[in-house]
Amino acid sequence: MSSEKAVGKIAIVGSGLVGSSWATIFASSGYKVQMYDISEKQLQTALTLVEKNLRKLDEHGLQRGNISADAALLNVSTTTSLEEVMKGAIYVQESALEDVNFRIEFYKKLDSITEPNTILASSTSTIPASKFTEGLVNRERCLIVHPVNPPLFLPLTEIVPAPWTSQETIDKAAKIMESIKQKPVKLKKEVLGFAVNRLQFALLAEAWRLVADDVIGVNDVDLVMSAGLGPRYAFNGPCETVHLNAFGVRDYFRRYGSGATTVLNDMGIVPDFTDESVIQKFETELEPKMSSSNIREYQAEREVKLVEMAKLKKAMNL
Amino acid sequence: MSSEKAVGKIAIVGSGLVGSSWATIFASSGYKVQMYDISEKQLQTALTLVEKNLRKLDEHGLQRGNISADAALLNVSTTTSLEEVMKGAIYVQESALEDVNFRIEFYKKLDSITEPNTILASSTSTIPASKFTEGLVNRERCLIVHPVNPPLFLPLTEIVPAPWTSQETIDKAAKIMESIKQKPVKLKKEVLGFAVNRLQFALLAEAWRLVADDVIGVNDVDLVMSAGLGPRYAFNGPCETVHLNAFGVRDYFRRYGSGATTVLNDMGIVPDFTDESVIQKFETELEPKMSSSNIREYQAEREVKLVEMAKLKKAMNL
Repeated sequence: MSSEKAVGKIAIVGSGLVGSSWATIFASSGYKVQMYDISEKQLQTALTLVEKNLRKLDEHGLQRGNISADAALLNVSTTTSLEEVMKGAIYVQESALEDVNFRIEFYKKLDSITEPNTILASSTSTIPASKFTEGLVNRERCLIVHPVNPPLFLPLTEIVPAPWTSQETIDKAAKIMESIKQKPVKLKKEVLGFAVNRLQFALLAEAWRLVADDVIGVNDVDLVMSAGLGPRYAFNGPCETVHLNAFGVRDYFRRYGSGATTVLNDMGIVPDFTDESVIQKFETELEPKMSSSNIREYQAEREVKLVEMAKLKKAMNL
Repeated sequence: MSSEKAVGKIAIVGSGLVGSSWATIFASSGYKVQMYDISEKQLQTALTLVEKNLRKLDEHGLQRGNISADAALLNVSTTTSLEEVMKGAIYVQESALEDVNFRIEFYKKLDSITEPNTILASSTSTIPASKFTEGLVNRERCLIVHPVNPPLFLPLTEIVPAPWTSQETIDKAAKIMESIKQKPVKLKKEVLGFAVNRLQFALLAEAWRLVADDVIGVNDVDLVMSAGLGPRYAFNGPCETVHLNAFGVRDYFRRYGSGATTVLNDMGIVPDFTDESVIQKFETELEPKMSSSNIREYQAEREVKLVEMAKLKKAMNL
């Protein structure tokens, strides 16, 4: 951890699960972190979670910088004053309500008190920045910086500009992400769902159709991924995968492109995800093994696996 | 390895990379294996590969049964006689040319010399069994048993019946797969691309469109998967993932279903995978890091990662 990093103050606006994860990652990298929320009680909960998170990173050797949990914790403070959290912040990571009307008002406030040069980054996965930053004075410093859950163990971060976000803002945000060992990808323009959810939904749609059409069961679709395609995707994305599944990507599309088109043309329309009969099929297979009333427990089980994966990738220098 | 398993003889018909992998897995599980191919030379190459594969499994503690590589090798024989390989086989795993006309003729021959009760399983990923088994006397014993590459370290296997495949054949094939520690999923009916390639192509199509539309670069699409979605998919498929990303699958679709539909409706049409300008974008990013002239080397690198993943999952009893 170089000492100049600690010069920067990071404002964490909204201290729920996502905000607390961000606070953890920034603090673990040696930044000064201040968390803002509307109630003291919520901030105490968040602080407890950040401490737990930092100790977890220590335990598994997955700290983002060269700073211990104890030292990192000393750099984390809280406030219920929006003015205070923004003061001196080089970067604001906002993880507040996923509601466009709330955001429009909230960003007006942020805009009115932001210092020059502060970057205003939103964690939202569903609302493009253009929907709540258009009228702002400092709109060129606003953008989306969207993590994947759980951010502590999955470093991918989407950087999505609004049409008016400056290149400087995009580049600075990416550099800050790199400084905390997140892996930023820059989208060149705004699209609905960004890249993460577009890919995820494309897959989910076909999983849904296969189940709806009685081709395969829910647990078996999951097994196709976890015992087949998934372990490859943990190391190589879809482009590298086809490149490696032939003698390069050109050879792949030459040999399998028209076959892939035929299969894609055979897929059905965009699913109606409210279809009760299909939802019941999903529930019938998923609930017995992962009851939604104990979902936190199963999320914790997933996290244990992702911790091991993160350690494996770290050991492989990936 | 229970000794009764070795009673069964497995016929491996076609001894290329896929056939050799099957021979390895069956031998490592303690089965008697006989490989058939048209030339002695090819069979010697295959035998060398099977030995190398078996030693690799030993080295990493990933044997499928309790039998050493040396002992397993003693159970592997070869023949250029189709009659001989079929003799006494309880199960035939055919991994021959992916050509429908070849298959139609070849299966007529297999059909004419098969013993009663032998299962005829094809490794094909692209040709449904109905296309080359319709006219056969023993067509109820024919089906697809499709592995994922590399089969030694990715256990998923699709079992895809033709409309006339008997339930007994399907169940027996699944049991045989379980006996060699493959993870079989049974498709309830024939669909183009089966499940593996339908899911893979759904993802590939959106990756292609994002690149074609200049939303994101090729390497960044791959990073979205490898540093974001992929590590989760290595443990939890798309259905479990949405179940865990909310308070169960019903809650997920209630909260995010209509948003997902909106995003899916925003995706473009089925790509034209022959579009030279897009292929060039793929090549421009992929070739410098993985030259297609050295693709075997990069496939070997991928295998090293998948070996570590297989060891991790074994250690976690997954």
